[in-house]
Amino acid sequence: MPNKIKKLAVLTSGGDSPGMNAAIRSVVRTCAYHKIECIAVYRGYEGLMEGDFKPMNARSVKDIINKGGTILKSARSDEFRTKEGRLKAFNKLNEANVDGLVVIGGDGTFTGALVFNQEYDFPVMGIPGTIDNDIFGTSHTLGFDTALNTVVEAIDKIRDTASSHNRLFFIEVMGRDVGHIALNTGIAGGAEEILIPEEDLGLDRLVDSLNKSRKSGKSSSIVIVAEGDKIGKNIFELKDYVDENMSGYDVRVSVLGHMQRGGSPSCFDRVLASRMGVKAVESLLEGKSNFMVGLLNNKMELTPLEKAIKGKSKINLELLRVSDIMST
Amino acid sequence: MPNKIKKLAVLTSGGDSPGMNAAIRSVVRTCAYHKIECIAVYRGYEGLMEGDFKPMNARSVKDIINKGGTILKSARSDEFRTKEGRLKAFNKLNEANVDGLVVIGGDGTFTGALVFNQEYDFPVMGIPGTIDNDIFGTSHTLGFDTALNTVVEAIDKIRDTASSHNRLFFIEVMGRDVGHIALNTGIAGGAEEILIPEEDLGLDRLVDSLNKSRKSGKSSSIVIVAEGDKIGKNIFELKDYVDENMSGYDVRVSVLGHMQRGGSPSCFDRVLASRMGVKAVESLLEGKSNFMVGLLNNKMELTPLEKAIKGKSKINLELLRVSDIMST
Amino acid sequence: MPNKIKKLAVLTSGGDSPGMNAAIRSVVRTCAYHKIECIAVYRGYEGLMEGDFKPMNARSVKDIINKGGTILKSARSDEFRTKEGRLKAFNKLNEANVDGLVVIGGDGTFTGALVFNQEYDFPVMGIPGTIDNDIFGTSHTLGFDTALNTVVEAIDKIRDTASSHNRLFFIEVMGRDVGHIALNTGIAGGAEEILIPEEDLGLDRLVDSLNKSRKSGKSSSIVIVAEGDKIGKNIFELKDYVDENMSGYDVRVSVLGHMQRGGSPSCFDRVLASRMGVKAVESLLEGKSNFMVGLLNNKMELTPLEKAIKGKSKINLELLRVSDIMST
Amino acid sequence: MPNKIKKLAVLTSGGDSPGMNAAIRSVVRTCAYHKIECIAVYRGYEGLMEGDFKPMNARSVKDIINKGGTILKSARSDEFRTKEGRLKAFNKLNEANVDGLVVIGGDGTFTGALVFNQEYDFPVMGIPGTIDNDIFGTSHTLGFDTALNTVVEAIDKIRDTASSHNRLFFIEVMGRDVGHIALNTGIAGGAEEILIPEEDLGLDRLVDSLNKSRKSGKSSSIVIVAEGDKIGKNIFELKDYVDENMSGYDVRVSVLGHMQRGGSPSCFDRVLASRMGVKAVESLLEGKSNFMVGLLNNKMELTPLEKAIKGKSKINLELLRVSDIMST
Repeated sequence: MPNKIKKLAVLTSGGDSPGMNAAIRSVVRTCAYHKIECIAVYRGYEGLMEGDFKPMNARSVKDIINKGGTILKSARSDEFRTKEGRLKAFNKLNEANVDGLVVIGGDGTFTGALVFNQEYDFPVMGIPGTIDNDIFGTSHTLGFDTALNTVVEAIDKIRDTASSHNRLFFIEVMGRDVGHIALNTGIAGGAEEILIPEEDLGLDRLVDSLNKSRKSGKSSSIVIVAEGDKIGKNIFELKDYVDENMSGYDVRVSVLGHMQRGGSPSCFDRVLASRMGVKAVESLLEGKSNFMVGLLNNKMELTPLEKAIKGKSKINLELLRVSDIMST
Repeated sequence: MPNKIKKLAVLTSGGDSPGMNAAIRSVVRTCAYHKIECIAVYRGYEGLMEGDFKPMNARSVKDIINKGGTILKSARSDEFRTKEGRLKAFNKLNEANVDGLVVIGGDGTFTGALVFNQEYDFPVMGIPGTIDNDIFGTSHTLGFDTALNTVVEAIDKIRDTASSHNRLFFIEVMGRDVGHIALNTGIAGGAEEILIPEEDLGLDRLVDSLNKSRKSGKSSSIVIVAEGDKIGKNIFELKDYVDENMSGYDVRVSVLGHMQRGGSPSCFDRVLASRMGVKAVESLLEGKSNFMVGLLNNKMELTPLEKAIKGKSKINLELLRVSDIMST
Repeated sequence: MPNKIKKLAVLTSGGDSPGMNAAIRSVVRTCAYHKIECIAVYRGYEGLMEGDFKPMNARSVKDIINKGGTILKSARSDEFRTKEGRLKAFNKLNEANVDGLVVIGGDGTFTGALVFNQEYDFPVMGIPGTIDNDIFGTSHTLGFDTALNTVVEAIDKIRDTASSHNRLFFIEVMGRDVGHIALNTGIAGGAEEILIPEEDLGLDRLVDSLNKSRKSGKSSSIVIVAEGDKIGKNIFELKDYVDENMSGYDVRVSVLGHMQRGGSPSCFDRVLASRMGVKAVESLLEGKSNFMVGLLNNKMELTPLEKAIKGKSKINLELLRVSDIMST
Repeated sequence: MPNKIKKLAVLTSGGDSPGMNAAIRSVVRTCAYHKIECIAVYRGYEGLMEGDFKPMNARSVKDIINKGGTILKSARSDEFRTKEGRLKAFNKLNEANVDGLVVIGGDGTFTGALVFNQEYDFPVMGIPGTIDNDIFGTSHTLGFDTALNTVVEAIDKIRDTASSHNRLFFIEVMGRDVGHIALNTGIAGGAEEILIPEEDLGLDRLVDSLNKSRKSGKSSSIVIVAEGDKIGKNIFELKDYVDENMSGYDVRVSVLGHMQRGGSPSCFDRVLASRMGVKAVESLLEGKSNFMVGLLNNKMELTPLEKAIKGKSKINLELLRVSDIMST
């Protein structure tokens, strides 16, 4: 039977995402609610090894629920991948009497926590924070919904100028390995075509499709391209290919870039973060360890970290079909 | 066996909500995709009885996916509640060779469709469009997600001024019978208390709670009140009661009102609308009738209209608990 | 000849407005740039009398340029209106070796500073911070531009639902004595009529005008009403009058309320705040006192506080005419 | 003495900008107000030569004041630069009985109108529509204010992620020949440095400055770079140079691109567009020709097209100084 936990630490690691602050707030307030202590760890695993800690109470996290980024900062750490690094971290946690750890981040973050747990049997719990939605065990990662709205607002703006000039726009959105952002924002932005890593429709079919929609009376078009798309080597090559093989359009490229990671979180992400923080803390208090909290069928559920890391987050095939029908 | 449908009509009725235009677009484009005809009906059941129709093709619905409101207009109709009214509508549909109807709206809209179907065996399919999320058979109604973000942005603005002045704000949000908007935006807006029709915590407990949070060091507070809350007769009475029974706060009221119904739909609502339109049209084409399409566990599902009308959309009790913990 | 100033204090007072934080940041950084000390005063004149001070350096004001409200809090103070109150404040400033004061606020704030200066010959400089734009000596007060955008976004949302339902909306915006917000947002929001304190067109003419525009084919209408409008006793009486004297419209009221004061400042307000802070500090350093900094013809100019208080900010009559033409 | 004008045409040409639709609306409604006819010309000078015209009345322009882009579309035209092209246009205008032309666009658009006027003595009036604010004779071009807010919102989002990771971001904003957008958004976005075409501070000084601000305690930094900046050949070369010559920062680049041209116009741009449309039409009705309407000292003023084209829009040197002080 696990010892009762009396003091928790929380950190953010990897790429930041909107909602991380709301999750930190939730972890801290849930600790306060259950009258256990809570400390914040700055700069992810780097700060964990250096003992860059700060005690938190319910008031320490006021006015952050609506802020993008992470007040705890984030960093990637090579040292934590070594045995020596993890020993340092364990010692710092021991010195501070911390007996449980909540990590907010993505795959890499969870892998670090898992290895740490296996070495020291230290209770850990993961909260999936990344805009890419590429984590198995949750229908939505923290920040995904906000990023979708950020991207759609940008597409709406680009469409204004695209349709004023009969232009074809290639818009690159984030998503190195998965096309969730591209697929959802492509449908919502009224895109002609959506290019995602999971599907390779080929350059010829793309040009065919664009030609078809020109003939059907469309005077401007938007193609959403996920970063990780494999058709062209990159979006600028895509543009060149289309420039050479299609006439009548003035082709432009827009790479949305890092603004997709920022911004005040949406209502959905704030509520999700609040729920996940409660679930993570209370699961640790119940003696559970080595899980990721996630949203499955609108309920908070636990998935073993190992499965969360190894599992694949899959594209909703229904959305691919909807996208096809919508670009009729 | 049902006759194959060759021509569909689509209308919006009841209060408008963001995403209705995206749903209209989806219905029209799905008809085009399946090469069946589609007409739009203006002004809901009023226009249905008057034959206020317009043929639609894929291009008729361009540039509307991002618009709030409904291009088909909406209206409440007393006449359609009479046998004579419905006969008129049936005749108009027959004259126009329409053999299936998609209605977008709420409870009242579905009741009209159901009665019409029972009298004339006319194929109908419902799409839930209302910001209140008060429909059984779908986890999200069209417009709910957008309204949540609109409300949260307003709360964020009010919080700026509340915390600059050590003020207590009562903010009234929509939701006559259900507290979904209040509960979600209360959590996301960092509200001190959330008053919803489903729960009556009583005026004394409210004042106790506010006093407690003052003592815990909070210098300003926000209370979210659903329109349909039963504690005070209305939000201004609430203010008066608190003014009399609490000191130290400058108490203010803000009624967010109709702006909650408008605005460009969120990515979520646009994708949901697109999915629902496809499902509604294809279900009619498969010979189904008298259902509402809904989102259940992230999948498109059908619920009999009768159940959708009679069923109760329930508050997520987990959220009540999360709200309690967050206001620690 | 004035002694060289070595230490400044800055405070915000009266109603808060977006851009106040950017102005505080500018005052603090301009002090740092000129290598003089700077302290912040919390809660306006209340904190001044209590010595609620905090030393500030360039880093103290990071990440606030984009925040609404005021990190220094604001409060109205009755005590500072008394000789005793002002003596307390003078003593506190002396104890802290402060030899100049920048006040950010409106009329009331400036009056306090003026009296204080007259009694103690203490160097003061004013920055006009209020969303109402009701200060003489500047074409724009801090927060006015942001409030205009906030109001216009709300009107856009309400228009979605107004035009979906053939409704007439009365929308109340801030502006107790002046109609700047109403006039600008009325034009920008495409309002049918704009009711401002400076003009009384009478209820009959309002109904005439609304009837005329109905006949010209408008199916929905929006009337913007400044808080301080004198036609009806209030906006709800206006609604009642129109309900009784006009048919065909479903009349609704929306009071935008306090959200108009909050929100992240616009680019214009952030730049204006930055310019005003520099001008205020450097004017004090040049030995000037008892002025308000303002924007006149796109340049920073000084206006004696006395004139700023007594002068009247006037409505641009050209805008009234433009509004008339636009509602053709 | 000029003949009285009875029918006007309006077109948009060159790059689109937010507020163009509001200006079209204003031209059309001002014509309606003065009871003269108005036609719209599609696709700029291309449509002028082809007679791609549409009669407009007050209702034709409803619901466009808040839309980005231009409902009349825009295009660049080589043919209109030839005598033959302009003859075609003159003939089409004559056939349609048009006796005055309002053109909305930038330098190139005005040059076309000026030459056309010189050849045919055809009354023309210009409205400056471009986000770059690079036109002499107006303190603000249509769309500039909106673009500023769009850019600042993007910077705010990028700052979230920059400060979560101790990153240095180079953000490229529009402005090929002038630095107005860079300078204003740099100040408003709290940028460390602002690189504009008008100033060449040199790469070494840039690295010095960034090093200095690191030492002063800043953990993340943002540098705004105008498209037309001459320091590096482009922003990616800038990044490479800094990567090589500075350590400690993770350097990233973001090119904001075409989204800067779109979006719903700000209140300021909508009011400005409404004023400019009235002034343009009424000036033509007064027999004036060959002018551009502009905003000077908050008043509508006329500038001869020739001066508007040849004059230089200058950077406000005060802003450069404010920027320097703010990055203390």
